[in-house]
Amino acid sequence: MMTVGELGEQGLLAVIKPYCSELVGDDGALLPSPQGSIVVTTDVLVDGVHFSDHTTPPHSIGWRAVAANLSDLAAMGASPLGITVGLSLPPETPVDWVKGVYQGMQDCLDRYGGSIIGGDLVRSKVRTLAITALGEVQSDRTIFRTGAKVGDVLVVTGPHGASRAGLEALLNPRNPDLPEVAILIKAHQYPVPRLDLRPYLDKVVGMDSSDGLADALVQICRASGVGARIDRLPIHPLVQEYWGDRAIEWTLYGGEDFELVLAMPRDQAQGLIDQVAGCSVIGEVTESSVVWVNGREVRSISQTQSFQHFG
Amino acid sequence: MMTVGELGEQGLLAVIKPYCSELVGDDGALLPSPQGSIVVTTDVLVDGVHFSDHTTPPHSIGWRAVAANLSDLAAMGASPLGITVGLSLPPETPVDWVKGVYQGMQDCLDRYGGSIIGGDLVRSKVRTLAITALGEVQSDRTIFRTGAKVGDVLVVTGPHGASRAGLEALLNPRNPDLPEVAILIKAHQYPVPRLDLRPYLDKVVGMDSSDGLADALVQICRASGVGARIDRLPIHPLVQEYWGDRAIEWTLYGGEDFELVLAMPRDQAQGLIDQVAGCSVIGEVTESSVVWVNGREVRSISQTQSFQHFG
Repeated sequence: MMTVGELGEQGLLAVIKPYCSELVGDDGALLPSPQGSIVVTTDVLVDGVHFSDHTTPPHSIGWRAVAANLSDLAAMGASPLGITVGLSLPPETPVDWVKGVYQGMQDCLDRYGGSIIGGDLVRSKVRTLAITALGEVQSDRTIFRTGAKVGDVLVVTGPHGASRAGLEALLNPRNPDLPEVAILIKAHQYPVPRLDLRPYLDKVVGMDSSDGLADALVQICRASGVGARIDRLPIHPLVQEYWGDRAIEWTLYGGEDFELVLAMPRDQAQGLIDQVAGCSVIGEVTESSVVWVNGREVRSISQTQSFQHFG
Repeated sequence: MMTVGELGEQGLLAVIKPYCSELVGDDGALLPSPQGSIVVTTDVLVDGVHFSDHTTPPHSIGWRAVAANLSDLAAMGASPLGITVGLSLPPETPVDWVKGVYQGMQDCLDRYGGSIIGGDLVRSKVRTLAITALGEVQSDRTIFRTGAKVGDVLVVTGPHGASRAGLEALLNPRNPDLPEVAILIKAHQYPVPRLDLRPYLDKVVGMDSSDGLADALVQICRASGVGARIDRLPIHPLVQEYWGDRAIEWTLYGGEDFELVLAMPRDQAQGLIDQVAGCSVIGEVTESSVVWVNGREVRSISQTQSFQHFG
């Protein structure tokens, strides 16, 4: 009998797809409502897989979980309404751990919008946090992955690789006192969902880079039936300085930087760059269906490592 | 350091409450929307805690998970819009198990409304299904637990104890060939969310009996600041016949019958009973803050067994 581990993540997604509504596909699902749409997005975080007491204190676990969901809302052009929290806990979980996680969730919501509007609390062998976030977006402001046009430029809203470098610094400490390392650790533990960009994003195509910059580029190109040529990788300067030999890899595949990756006409990109610090053009949309970075083809993590996710 | 198991479920809920919005409380949270409200409800189901391959085939696990969430929508007077599914799986999970669960979810949605609009798929040590259901309800048709008035009668929409008896028949088979036992097993494996009642429920108070009839009565009375006197327990006739010595216990505390427990004026109750088969008056709302059943005080499972949930 074939197992999920043998089939791999992409195969499993193909098995599940026929059961899912057409609405599934972008960072969140869209439910039509009279004044626009309700956006719904779900993330499940598992102890030992998505977080660990070694690298993330409870407050950061809560913050990161909410930030990841709010980033999905930002990636759709939506603003947050609220979240539900399904928490699975072994009986030996310290109560202070639970308080820390909820305080982290609340602090993130207080900063960026929304509140905890529901949930469930159950016993399990593994600490698991299942969050569903709801947002709202005006129909003509919704951001999709589809629609990138040949000649559009590709814009990122900030540098990449910092979260992965911060994780490295936590896993293999060396120079923990350097203030630069503290900045990278903060990027890993307290990511910022880019909800601040919403007013500037009219008629753009895009998604967030939670699964890595390469993945975002591949997804946008695949959805839009185009390719991309990237010649100015947004490498975080501190990653370049301290982990120069890993900088390109982490920029493309590190993930969890939670920036937005956008396609838009060049004029519009210039306007965005003038208004929002940290945004930059990294390349442009091409006719080919391939994503080229510095002259080499890149594939998304889900294309190259599909068997690892469930292995 | 105090653990979750030592604190117990009620204590843990008290810890979490300050972090949650005022919206939390009934079977689902309400988000105001222009034409009424969006209702959101979340359930987490864990292998070995909420389901088991011994008692529930994968198709039934999917059906039950969706039915439980749709029942929460029915309990608020809402109709289903869609669900998100967060699925955590160990790599050794058979692919056929996943297919069965999704088929069960889809069959339940096809029957009662809504579709799978999003989700997440992650690796874990324990099979876990986290479902969030969204529904919509007109503001003046929303059903709350609060507002039951002295003199109202208490109505259930069907008999109780069948699901618990069905579980018993699965755990300790005796006479599996009796068609009556098959009816009880079906009640456990394929519960029916009472969405059919929505047209008849105007200005009523209530909730569903997913956590047991006693729990529903205690919750409604506590929320409304009243008591209840129950003198006609809705014992399922087959439970009375085959497990007579457990019939009262299972009717009050068995849970997962997914009927609605409602408070309304006596005239209105008579109208409902005339229109919908299976509905019956079981008692009435009183001034005391105690729920009396056949002359004895009952407490909800959460009041009496709070330390077992996380023990």
